[in-house]
Amino acid sequence: MQAVIEYLQKNQARFVEELIEYLRFPSVSAQPQHRKDLQACGEWLVQQCRGIGLDARLCPTEGNPILIAKTPGAQGGKRPHYVVYGHYDVQPPEPFELWKSPPFEPRIVGRALFARGSSDNKGQNLAHLKAVEAYLKTGTPLPCDLTFVIEGEEEVGSASLATFLKQHRAELKCDAIVISDTGMPSPKHPALTYALRGIAAMELIVHGPSRDLHSGIFGGSVDNPAMVLSQLLAKVRDKNGRITIPGFYDDVTPLSAYERKQLARLPGSDSAYRKFLGVPQLFGERGFTSTEQRSARPTFEINGLTSGYQGEGSKTIIPAWARAKITMRLVPNQNPRKIIQAARRYLASLCPPTVRLETKSGHGAEPYVVAPTSPQAQAALRALKSAFGREPVLLREGGSIPIVNDFKKFLHADTLLLGLALPDANAHSPNEQFDLDCFEKGQLMSAYLWQELSAAGA
Amino acid sequence: MQAVIEYLQKNQARFVEELIEYLRFPSVSAQPQHRKDLQACGEWLVQQCRGIGLDARLCPTEGNPILIAKTPGAQGGKRPHYVVYGHYDVQPPEPFELWKSPPFEPRIVGRALFARGSSDNKGQNLAHLKAVEAYLKTGTPLPCDLTFVIEGEEEVGSASLATFLKQHRAELKCDAIVISDTGMPSPKHPALTYALRGIAAMELIVHGPSRDLHSGIFGGSVDNPAMVLSQLLAKVRDKNGRITIPGFYDDVTPLSAYERKQLARLPGSDSAYRKFLGVPQLFGERGFTSTEQRSARPTFEINGLTSGYQGEGSKTIIPAWARAKITMRLVPNQNPRKIIQAARRYLASLCPPTVRLETKSGHGAEPYVVAPTSPQAQAALRALKSAFGREPVLLREGGSIPIVNDFKKFLHADTLLLGLALPDANAHSPNEQFDLDCFEKGQLMSAYLWQELSAAGA
Repeated sequence: MQAVIEYLQKNQARFVEELIEYLRFPSVSAQPQHRKDLQACGEWLVQQCRGIGLDARLCPTEGNPILIAKTPGAQGGKRPHYVVYGHYDVQPPEPFELWKSPPFEPRIVGRALFARGSSDNKGQNLAHLKAVEAYLKTGTPLPCDLTFVIEGEEEVGSASLATFLKQHRAELKCDAIVISDTGMPSPKHPALTYALRGIAAMELIVHGPSRDLHSGIFGGSVDNPAMVLSQLLAKVRDKNGRITIPGFYDDVTPLSAYERKQLARLPGSDSAYRKFLGVPQLFGERGFTSTEQRSARPTFEINGLTSGYQGEGSKTIIPAWARAKITMRLVPNQNPRKIIQAARRYLASLCPPTVRLETKSGHGAEPYVVAPTSPQAQAALRALKSAFGREPVLLREGGSIPIVNDFKKFLHADTLLLGLALPDANAHSPNEQFDLDCFEKGQLMSAYLWQELSAAGA
Repeated sequence: MQAVIEYLQKNQARFVEELIEYLRFPSVSAQPQHRKDLQACGEWLVQQCRGIGLDARLCPTEGNPILIAKTPGAQGGKRPHYVVYGHYDVQPPEPFELWKSPPFEPRIVGRALFARGSSDNKGQNLAHLKAVEAYLKTGTPLPCDLTFVIEGEEEVGSASLATFLKQHRAELKCDAIVISDTGMPSPKHPALTYALRGIAAMELIVHGPSRDLHSGIFGGSVDNPAMVLSQLLAKVRDKNGRITIPGFYDDVTPLSAYERKQLARLPGSDSAYRKFLGVPQLFGERGFTSTEQRSARPTFEINGLTSGYQGEGSKTIIPAWARAKITMRLVPNQNPRKIIQAARRYLASLCPPTVRLETKSGHGAEPYVVAPTSPQAQAALRALKSAFGREPVLLREGGSIPIVNDFKKFLHADTLLLGLALPDANAHSPNEQFDLDCFEKGQLMSAYLWQELSAAGA
C-alpha cells in the first residue's frame, strides 16, 4: 500500500488538472443541445480509463452512453468483485448570473474547486478512478476485481440504467456496489450512509357538488369538499407528530441503541438548523431527535393543496372538489404498497357520506438499509478512518436514491454510500464546488476500501 | 282601482311589445363595446317614462347614466314617498351557442319571453312602470309619491350608485324602497324576500419554512404549513355542522316560530334538492331544515385552498406556505367586523408555534332583515295576495344584495324585495326567460302595493 499512497501524493497536481479537463464538458443531460457534449465527455472518460490501464468502452443506450471500465485480468468469481457507480452528466447551470465564475470554466479558490459537476459527481467518481490508477501504475496487486459504471442520465432519472443493468447482469455480478454521490457532514466527519428512506405517493380528491356552487344561495346546506379534505388530513397526524394511520408503524425496524448513539455524534445544533430552515420552531415526532425524525422515521407530508378559487380577492363559492398531493417517506422495513393501502383504508373510514373520496396511488420506492454492523459496512468505516484520520460517522439519508433499489433488484448486491461532498458543495445550485482535500482523501479512502472489503471477505 | 285593473288587462299586448323593444338593446354593462347601447337604452327609458306621464331624466355618472322618473306633482313629504329601484343593464349573453334563439331578438314560446335581461331585470322594472302608467292614464289618484331609480351598472357592482344616492339624498328621501329583482319559488308562490345574509371575507396564510423544502431531506423534523392549515380549518366546524369560533352565534337573532312556519311552507323536497346539487347526501347545521341552513343560519365556507405543488404527478416538497380563502355568511344581527375579529382570535389561539399565521380581512357586508310582521311587510304580502290570488310565502335570501345596505345607509329606509322571476328564469345563463303571467301579475301587485303601503301608513 505504501507505493499506492506515495503515487497518490505525488500526482495530486496532475489529478486536479485532469478533473478540470473533465469539468470543462458542459454535460447537461436535461438540455438536448448538450447531447454532443455528453457523448464527448463519455469519450474523454474512455480515454481517461484506458490511460489508467482499465478495459473501457462506452455502451450505447436509448439515451446517453454508459461507460464500463474494468480492471484487467478479471478472475471471474475467484476473488471479490465490486462495482463502482458514478455519473458524468450534470445539473443545468442556470441561473448563470448567480455564478461568481462561469460554471464550465473551473476555478480554484484555496482548496475549493468551483464548477458545475465538481461535487456532483465528476470529482467523486474521478477520485475512485485515481485510486485504481495508483494500484495499476505502481504494479500493486488489487485484492479484487473492479468494474466502473459511469452513466450520463443520473440527473434526469437514470432512464436507461435499469435496462442496462438487466442486459449486463452477468458481467456486473458483484459483491457490493460502491457509490460516492452523497455527502459528509464536515471535513472532520467522514461518513457512511447506511440507510435511505423509501417513498409512497398518493393523491386525495374529495368530490362534492357537481359544480362550484354559489356560497350564498347554497352555503350551509351542503358539505364543503375543502372542509372535508381539511378534516381528513387533520386526523392523519396527532399533536405528538405521530401518524395515526392504523398499522403505519407496524413494520418499522426500530433504531438500535448503537444507531442512535452513532446518529447523536453528528455535528450541528437544532438552533442552527431551525435558523437554516427559517421556521419559528422545529416540529417532529416526539421522542426522537431532529436527525432521527428526518432520516429514520416515516412521515406523511402534504406536498400540495388545490381547491376552488386561487386568484386575487374572493370568489364566493363552495368548490366542487378539493385535492391533496401526498408523499409518505418510509423507513426500513415498511412497504410502499402496504402503507398506501393502509392510508386509503383509514381515509375511507373517516370520510363522511356527504362527499365522495377518490384516492390515487402514485410512485413508490422501497426504503433501503445496510446493517451498519455488517462486515461490508465495518470495512467501509475502517477505510474512511484510515483515509481521513477521523472516526467516521454513520448517516441515514432522508430521501430516496432509486438506483440503489435497482442495484439490489438486478444485481442482488448491497450498496455502500461513501459520499465526499461537504454541506456547502452547492450541488444543484450556483457556485457548485468540490473540496480538493475531500478529492485527495477520497482517493485514499478508495485505495483502502478494496483492501478492507476484500480482507473482510465481504 | 277598477279602472287601473281594466287598463292593465286591456293593454297587455302593447306592454309585451314595449318590453320586447326594451329587450332589443344589448345593454351589456360588462362589455365596453356596448357603452353606446347602454346610453341608447337609458334614453329609450326616458321616453318610455315621459310617455307614461312621469318627469324623467338621465343623470350622468362616471359610468352609465341613472334614470330618475317621478310621478308628477310630488307633494314633498305630505304623503308617503316610495322609491322603485331597477336596472336596465344586463349580463353578458355568452356563450352564444347555447342560446336557442339570439339573446337580443326576443322570442315568445307559450307564456315565456326569451331574451337576455327579460327576468333580470327589464321585465320586472317595466312591470312597475306599467302599473303607474295605469294610474296616470286612467286618472286614478295615487295615494303616494313615487320615484323610479333605474341604473345601468348593477351587473358590474353598481359602482356609481352610492355616490348617486349621496348626491340625491334629499330628492330620494322616502318611506321604503321597492325592488323586484329576486325570485319566487313557483307561479303558485308569490314571495316577499324579507332577509338577506351578510358576508365577511378573509384569507388565512400559514407560513412555514423560508422556501419549499425537500421532503426527503427535511421531512419529519419541520412542520408542514399545509397540514397546519388543514388542522386549523378542521377545528372551525364540528360534526353537527356548528361553527366553533367562540362568540360566532352570540348576536344571531333566532328565527321566530312564525318565520320557521313560513319557511316550512316553501315548495321543494330535500331529495330533489340533493339531486340538483349532485351530492351523495346533504349536510348542514343540525336542528335546522335545509331552507333554514342556507338562508337563515351563518356559515364558514372555504372558497379556495392553495399550497405547494399543483401540477401533474408529484413533487416531493414541504410547501413554504398554505392559503385558504374564506367567506362567512352572516345573518341578522351579526356584524362582519366583529365576526372576522372573533375568527382571527380563535385561529390565532389554535395556531401552533411552529409556523406563522397571517390573516387578511376582505370585504364585509351587513346582513339585512325587514321584520315580516312589520306594517310594510304585511302590506306587501296583501298586495302579493291580491295580485296572484295565492297566499304569498316569506323568503330569506342566502346571498347578499349590497345595494340594499346602500339604501339603508344613505336613505335610511327599508327595502321590500318582491321578486317576479321563477326558478327556471335562467338569469345570468343562456336562454334567460320571463314568464308573461308574472309580468302581468307583477303590474297588478305594483298597483295594489301603493294602496296597501299608503293605507298602512307605512
